[in-house]
Amino acid sequence: MSVTEGPGLRLVEPRAVLVPATELARRLAGLQAALADLGLDAALLQQNADLYYYAGTVQQSYLYVPRQGEATLFVRKVVERARLESALGAVEELPSPKELPRLIAERYGAPPARCGVELDVLPVARFRRLEKIFPETAFEDAGRVVVRQRAVKSPWEVERIRASAAVADEVGRRIPGLLREGLTEVEFAGRVEAEARRLGHEGYIRMRGFNQEMFYGQLLTGVSGCVPSYLDTPLAGTGLSASVAQGASFRRIGRGEPVLFDFVPVRDGYMADFTRAYSIGPLPDELMRAYGAALRVQEAATGAARPGATCSAVWDAARAAAAGAGLAENFMGHGPGQVPYVGHGIGIELDELPVLTSSGLELEPGMVFALEPKFVLPGLGAIGIENTWLVTGDGVERLTTSSEELVVV
Amino acid sequence: MSVTEGPGLRLVEPRAVLVPATELARRLAGLQAALADLGLDAALLQQNADLYYYAGTVQQSYLYVPRQGEATLFVRKVVERARLESALGAVEELPSPKELPRLIAERYGAPPARCGVELDVLPVARFRRLEKIFPETAFEDAGRVVVRQRAVKSPWEVERIRASAAVADEVGRRIPGLLREGLTEVEFAGRVEAEARRLGHEGYIRMRGFNQEMFYGQLLTGVSGCVPSYLDTPLAGTGLSASVAQGASFRRIGRGEPVLFDFVPVRDGYMADFTRAYSIGPLPDELMRAYGAALRVQEAATGAARPGATCSAVWDAARAAAAGAGLAENFMGHGPGQVPYVGHGIGIELDELPVLTSSGLELEPGMVFALEPKFVLPGLGAIGIENTWLVTGDGVERLTTSSEELVVV
Repeated sequence: MSVTEGPGLRLVEPRAVLVPATELARRLAGLQAALADLGLDAALLQQNADLYYYAGTVQQSYLYVPRQGEATLFVRKVVERARLESALGAVEELPSPKELPRLIAERYGAPPARCGVELDVLPVARFRRLEKIFPETAFEDAGRVVVRQRAVKSPWEVERIRASAAVADEVGRRIPGLLREGLTEVEFAGRVEAEARRLGHEGYIRMRGFNQEMFYGQLLTGVSGCVPSYLDTPLAGTGLSASVAQGASFRRIGRGEPVLFDFVPVRDGYMADFTRAYSIGPLPDELMRAYGAALRVQEAATGAARPGATCSAVWDAARAAAAGAGLAENFMGHGPGQVPYVGHGIGIELDELPVLTSSGLELEPGMVFALEPKFVLPGLGAIGIENTWLVTGDGVERLTTSSEELVVV
Repeated sequence: MSVTEGPGLRLVEPRAVLVPATELARRLAGLQAALADLGLDAALLQQNADLYYYAGTVQQSYLYVPRQGEATLFVRKVVERARLESALGAVEELPSPKELPRLIAERYGAPPARCGVELDVLPVARFRRLEKIFPETAFEDAGRVVVRQRAVKSPWEVERIRASAAVADEVGRRIPGLLREGLTEVEFAGRVEAEARRLGHEGYIRMRGFNQEMFYGQLLTGVSGCVPSYLDTPLAGTGLSASVAQGASFRRIGRGEPVLFDFVPVRDGYMADFTRAYSIGPLPDELMRAYGAALRVQEAATGAARPGATCSAVWDAARAAAAGAGLAENFMGHGPGQVPYVGHGIGIELDELPVLTSSGLELEPGMVFALEPKFVLPGLGAIGIENTWLVTGDGVERLTTSSEELVVV
């Protein structure tokens, strides 16, 4: 099944895949089990990533999921397109959100008494309008169970993440041919991003956290890697202004300094996360030693990562390896920029579970995370590695498969 | 003042400007007047665009604005960077949000009894945590007054928008040299985006609306322009998958079809909005006629736009001109994709006031809006024009100044 099907969408080459009906059915069944556990009658989901996950479309909609029975996607705009994109059987037009209680009552007998919504992302004003539309309904949080369910990927999802990872691997391989001394970081970033677009990078990166923003990742050179920011990331960079405050800057790329390429590919809504290091001419020994330490941290952390292991166990293994290299103070940032984790879940949002931090959450087969051991050496720059990993039956498998060699151009 | 100042940020070339202290003071005074009108004791602002507007930084912060007296920026991460970026006098470290009531009481005597927050963008869960932290405070909406204040730009802001518009004008001029038959839309988009990056495009586009997403704008060719989407925009395109569902696709660019380049430049956080049309070889007459109609709609709408005119007056003038061209059914989309407006305010978010729709809001000097008369001709594609306009003392001034000629390559 591809988006070439259907009259309005026949113009697209068959490179994109729609979310199959079997995937949607499995996901909805998982959500319904969680709703039953919470004693909720239904969920009413509204956020783009969640709509894409459970309905296969981001057309302006409310997805009504009863605790039992068939879900209905009520579409405000554009219902014809939602019907082409979604494999759900019930995709109905919604003239106005005010009609929701009536339409739900028609299909399900009555509006729900207790209904889950995504309190972690719904703005207060929108939520209050919903409360007015459903005066008899008690709304509770369903965001937590949605996020928890999405942490474990199906084989179909893992294939999407592999396809996305392949974009990062390929762009990474092209970097040595694009890297030129004297280019500004942002001009270089633009050339790299153009390669990514040619390979089908979708552009927009979804994040769930309030105020979290990302544009491709961060291409940082030299001391740009030392600049911490508002983001919950070990590296950030200056950016082009105080408004963006992260990522590539107008700094010119020099010789003998790290070129760190932290890159988030997106295909079919699925992301990977990937960092590789390059330089024009050899790097100072301190940076080379830190790069070696990053590889050892990765080895220690992935050695600890297996089904049943807690996130804490992985984080502790990573920290111990960093400390063993004498780089505890430089690990995952330096000073006020240090962040207390070494990796994060990834899928259709960049900030998914599991977070590899002090946390009792246990890894499960199908979880996918980015592990990003990085070191900041003040005055010299940042160095490190990042790969995307799948938790398998007995350990982890690397999904970003390209060489981990630090390439000196 | 530039971001080259301060030890941690000395690495950036002096192309970015910080928001001057005089701007912040004027903006905060305006907000304080609005708080007094609403009977609020203070506002506690948290969203990136609003932090940038009132504090000049997006570092993780809470901006406390008392009804009278000096505002304080309480910074969670990274206070050193916030002090470099913000021209506010009071920038304090915030170890944890739980410390806010104590720190506010220390500086202002007591926590506020009635406090404004951005209910239009704050997620419910975050808002409820805030309510727990401030058990004695009644929170009310301040988002509406923030958005209303931001609709009127200062001369300093207009200069930022002009600088951003210049990026769009320059990229637009380069398009004929980049356009090649047989390129996929997304590959072509990537090459255009690389030019924009070289000119300092900051990448991320801020939008205030829930679930609204944008990546540079939309580069649409041929019938791609006819595909409507979830977005509140006249054109959207297929995108690369059902996940992104807008913008460039894998469709190959052909001869004799419209290449519509709707592009949002960003510099120093300020945006413009801009659409130009191109083609390889001549276009069918229907499209050329529709392009002429778009220019006449623009003329009619900008003729109606002046201080004191309502948004409705501009919208009515635009609709009348479209109907006069016999294209009412094709104006601002076709069928279910039609949207009921012809323009929108723009500044540090893409979806600002004024919205040029049925609305009694009156235009004021300093308002900046994008006016985008566009037509969708089913089976042929979309065509139209978009410029960014400043409301002056007696009319409007065009800020995107490049030629409006439809360029046939």
